[in-house]
Amino acid sequence: MSDEDMTLPITLDFTALRAAFASGLTPVALVETVIERMNASPDPAIFIARVDDAELKKAAEELMARAPEPNSLPLWGMPFAVKDNIDVAGMPTTAACPEFAYTAERDATVVARLKAAGALLIGKTNLDQFATGLNGTRSPYGAPRSVFNSEYVSGGSSSGSSVTVASGLAAFALGTDTAGSGRVPAAFNNIVGVKPSPGRVPNTGVLPACRSVDVVTVFANTVADGIATRAIMDGYGAEDPFSREASQAALPATLRVGVLMDKDREFYGNGGYAKLYEQAIERARTLGAEIVEFDYAPFREAAALLYQGPWVAERLAAIESFFNAHADAMDPTVRDIIAGGANYSAVDAFNARYELERLRQLSLKEWAKADVLLLPTSPDIQTVEAMKADPVALNSRFGLYTNFANLLGYSAIAVPAGFTEAGLPFGVTLVGPQDADDALAPFASRLHRVAETGSGLDRSKAIEDIPHNANDRLEIAVVGAHLTGMPLNPQLTSRGGTLVEETRTAPFYNFYALAGTTPAKPGLQRTSEQQDSGIIVEVWSLPRAELADFIAAIPAPLGVGKLELADGRHVMGFLCEAIGLAGAQDITEFGGWRAYVASTTKKAS
Amino acid sequence: MSDEDMTLPITLDFTALRAAFASGLTPVALVETVIERMNASPDPAIFIARVDDAELKKAAEELMARAPEPNSLPLWGMPFAVKDNIDVAGMPTTAACPEFAYTAERDATVVARLKAAGALLIGKTNLDQFATGLNGTRSPYGAPRSVFNSEYVSGGSSSGSSVTVASGLAAFALGTDTAGSGRVPAAFNNIVGVKPSPGRVPNTGVLPACRSVDVVTVFANTVADGIATRAIMDGYGAEDPFSREASQAALPATLRVGVLMDKDREFYGNGGYAKLYEQAIERARTLGAEIVEFDYAPFREAAALLYQGPWVAERLAAIESFFNAHADAMDPTVRDIIAGGANYSAVDAFNARYELERLRQLSLKEWAKADVLLLPTSPDIQTVEAMKADPVALNSRFGLYTNFANLLGYSAIAVPAGFTEAGLPFGVTLVGPQDADDALAPFASRLHRVAETGSGLDRSKAIEDIPHNANDRLEIAVVGAHLTGMPLNPQLTSRGGTLVEETRTAPFYNFYALAGTTPAKPGLQRTSEQQDSGIIVEVWSLPRAELADFIAAIPAPLGVGKLELADGRHVMGFLCEAIGLAGAQDITEFGGWRAYVASTTKKAS
Repeated sequence: MSDEDMTLPITLDFTALRAAFASGLTPVALVETVIERMNASPDPAIFIARVDDAELKKAAEELMARAPEPNSLPLWGMPFAVKDNIDVAGMPTTAACPEFAYTAERDATVVARLKAAGALLIGKTNLDQFATGLNGTRSPYGAPRSVFNSEYVSGGSSSGSSVTVASGLAAFALGTDTAGSGRVPAAFNNIVGVKPSPGRVPNTGVLPACRSVDVVTVFANTVADGIATRAIMDGYGAEDPFSREASQAALPATLRVGVLMDKDREFYGNGGYAKLYEQAIERARTLGAEIVEFDYAPFREAAALLYQGPWVAERLAAIESFFNAHADAMDPTVRDIIAGGANYSAVDAFNARYELERLRQLSLKEWAKADVLLLPTSPDIQTVEAMKADPVALNSRFGLYTNFANLLGYSAIAVPAGFTEAGLPFGVTLVGPQDADDALAPFASRLHRVAETGSGLDRSKAIEDIPHNANDRLEIAVVGAHLTGMPLNPQLTSRGGTLVEETRTAPFYNFYALAGTTPAKPGLQRTSEQQDSGIIVEVWSLPRAELADFIAAIPAPLGVGKLELADGRHVMGFLCEAIGLAGAQDITEFGGWRAYVASTTKKAS
Repeated sequence: MSDEDMTLPITLDFTALRAAFASGLTPVALVETVIERMNASPDPAIFIARVDDAELKKAAEELMARAPEPNSLPLWGMPFAVKDNIDVAGMPTTAACPEFAYTAERDATVVARLKAAGALLIGKTNLDQFATGLNGTRSPYGAPRSVFNSEYVSGGSSSGSSVTVASGLAAFALGTDTAGSGRVPAAFNNIVGVKPSPGRVPNTGVLPACRSVDVVTVFANTVADGIATRAIMDGYGAEDPFSREASQAALPATLRVGVLMDKDREFYGNGGYAKLYEQAIERARTLGAEIVEFDYAPFREAAALLYQGPWVAERLAAIESFFNAHADAMDPTVRDIIAGGANYSAVDAFNARYELERLRQLSLKEWAKADVLLLPTSPDIQTVEAMKADPVALNSRFGLYTNFANLLGYSAIAVPAGFTEAGLPFGVTLVGPQDADDALAPFASRLHRVAETGSGLDRSKAIEDIPHNANDRLEIAVVGAHLTGMPLNPQLTSRGGTLVEETRTAPFYNFYALAGTTPAKPGLQRTSEQQDSGIIVEVWSLPRAELADFIAAIPAPLGVGKLELADGRHVMGFLCEAIGLAGAQDITEFGGWRAYVASTTKKAS
């Protein structure tokens, strides 16, 4: 096995694994390496239950029998771990509470989908009991540690899952995220945490923490790996009451990135983190984002509702009969938090919902300023010792910039963002509107790349870019009155249009100033004779629905067909009916509408 | 005044009022007539507070000063009434509980919008106290009666408002609807009740019943009047926590109408209503709808949650401090219901939410069968005497087919559907998905028309059709390979396209078979010479976003511009670049692509 192991990187990103599989590494050989790595792991608290070695090899063999061609399934041979509040058929689900454990009869929907896509389960991971916590120390199975310093917490509640990815045991791992459990441990282990918008990934077979806001998340080495995994888990599941048919919300190509105002920058004295946050903002700026400040107040107030309001009653609702019979078997901190759920009435619950909706309306004013929010994932990190000494207050710090996201329905991706001088990792989270899950990915991935952190323990891993997803927009070339600054340009900008580029057509068009049009308009007509050069056009991008509306408003003799550009691309663009050229002036020599308009203005003056 | 009054119909639909205004009736003269009618009304329980006569005339004068041209504002001169749980600046809001009353400082957002659109407020109407009830008898201001039989209830809680419209005092009136309060009184008075999808009309200035599910509704004589009024009230209001930017969901031109299965048809022994429901289904069938059965079970279970679950805690939350101090001042039935809200914990509230979401998922299976649901508005009607003797059980009957709608976020329009042999009115409600508010209207209006009920006391009023709303779809004329049955037709049908009509272009196009296209395609080119006839085209309707996609896939030399049709309309349609006609065959004489293709097939065989 050692030969193949030499080909594997420290952390198991999909690109490297796929290359290894393509070069002959078998899933069986891979899982043997993974078993060796698990056996050699310095952290004894990662797993609550490992998949039996023989079972794991058998699963790898079965995959090779089912899909012999390497990489012939989306997650072919990818080893993964699952947080132990997610059901795996035949294994106990403990939620880090042994007395609560039950053996699951069915895989959770997400687990079944991942297995079907070729992924290989290696084990079930440790967590803050009942997923109640953001630190990873609230478990009778021990406290997983940050892979960079064993005195420090791994973050939680998805503690063990994050460490499997960061230490190269798994290519990805599942967490769950109510307050921030899929993001904070990503930050503390220099990996990516993909937190889907609530409802897009089914929760069937996942033990609830707060059922109305829980989300299954992915830890991965890169944003690309994380969203590819999430895409496999995506999709309506009728058995989950909160599952829904999600869409793909769009974001503009150039993002307005909202950052914290000075008044809102709270790092609890962690100067290293404060500085790293500033550096992350500067990197976002150099990537071309427009940096804007927004008021964090409504988000902070929403965040506070999650633990300081009736939502803790959801935690009690999730385990009420167990709680009533066996509270003494629970972690004392977790028990005290969940017991608080009994203190709230239904009137309190509805009043808190009204408050949340009020804050949602306030948050819309901030979203008018920014397309995405760039926040510290956690403002601070703590040692296991300190955390155990002050378990509630220090834990709540970690959630300062995460707790609001699921209550308000947002998408989010946490990415690495550098290390303090003491060598502790820091992360930032890009938060988007509901269902911007894929749209967030390209910028999140670039932020990760330029931070030059690598991934997990592999701090020199190269991170590839993800292309901007253009699925929901279409491009159209304009040539006359719709150009920037021209009279009809607002028809584009008012429909959410953005300028993509200025370029020229292929040199096969005659260009005419049409007779009797108001405002004055030109027309293009393709010719078979080569001209000196093409005609200047602007390519604009519009949302699909808006583009149809735009085209519908175009009067005869103009229409929309395909224009050939100078570089050979064919894009939608303005054409003119032949009959519309009656009385038109051939202005091809001007090479573009601006030059022609300038010439007429000069004549007039 | 009597001269003008002669021109007014019994009930005040917009069409009649606009015609009267156009013929010289002034708003001042109209309100004088309305005042006379109010003074002569046989029902003393309609209003809690009328607008002072002098004030009403002054408002009419001010309208004439502000907008002198008749019908120059959308609701120019339309008299309207407002349920007395909706604020009007300077008037008390009682919610039918005098001890609770306060004088409002501002108009509710909806009232302000309606006044700005030219409507004239005539008064504030009676209701079941705190909008808790569906019958109209729970008020110290008396019980309004059905305009068709004064022994029978008007329905509630928006009792007085429905009677103002049905008896010709107001052109429209506002209700609120939590369980069915904007629909049941419409049924009991032979008028239309337009219930918007929750969140599309702001509730700012409306006293909550259940804040998370309350909706402001419109009573009107016709569906057209109702949705025109709702459109004025529409639009995000940041001060309402539950307000949102609503969209316009589409419905197909031919509807699958879901109707109750035999097992679900409960009319509590009211055989007249059962028969009228069957007749309404038959009328829907004759209108071209496809009648399908669906299982009402998940909707019935959701309906039961509203009064038999923690949502009553919302009623307590809305008035908690008043309730704690002055419960003895309340209607005993209302008091007992609202007191029940204190019995639920936050755990109960969350568990009930989970149950609602579970039922929502079950309901989706039923929505897969039907585009809209056609339900009895109320399965029964009762006398005031019977209702007072059994106030809770008989009331809950009225909500059997209404209670679920707001909990599940749906749109609904209640329309008249005939009379029993005893002369009591029956109504049906068309329920649509969220934001199908406008899309429901054309079919709802036709159902109303063919029921031949007239409106309110005016049982012979003619009801006009509303055209199918094409706002969210666009039309495009196809001429060749996209025609029905031709090879590229699936590009239309797979995008949700529907055939609108077959027609011809104006006689100003040459028609060519293009050289070297696969599949074979024609091209149209406009000419200045008149031809014998136009070219046959099919006009297809596509969703806007799909249309953009369709156009983007069109290869050169074809494109989309404006075609002139034989009747002079200009629609989007296929054009051809002049250069694409090289080598093409002029097939204008065939008059259409089918005839040309048939001729080539004949030759080949």
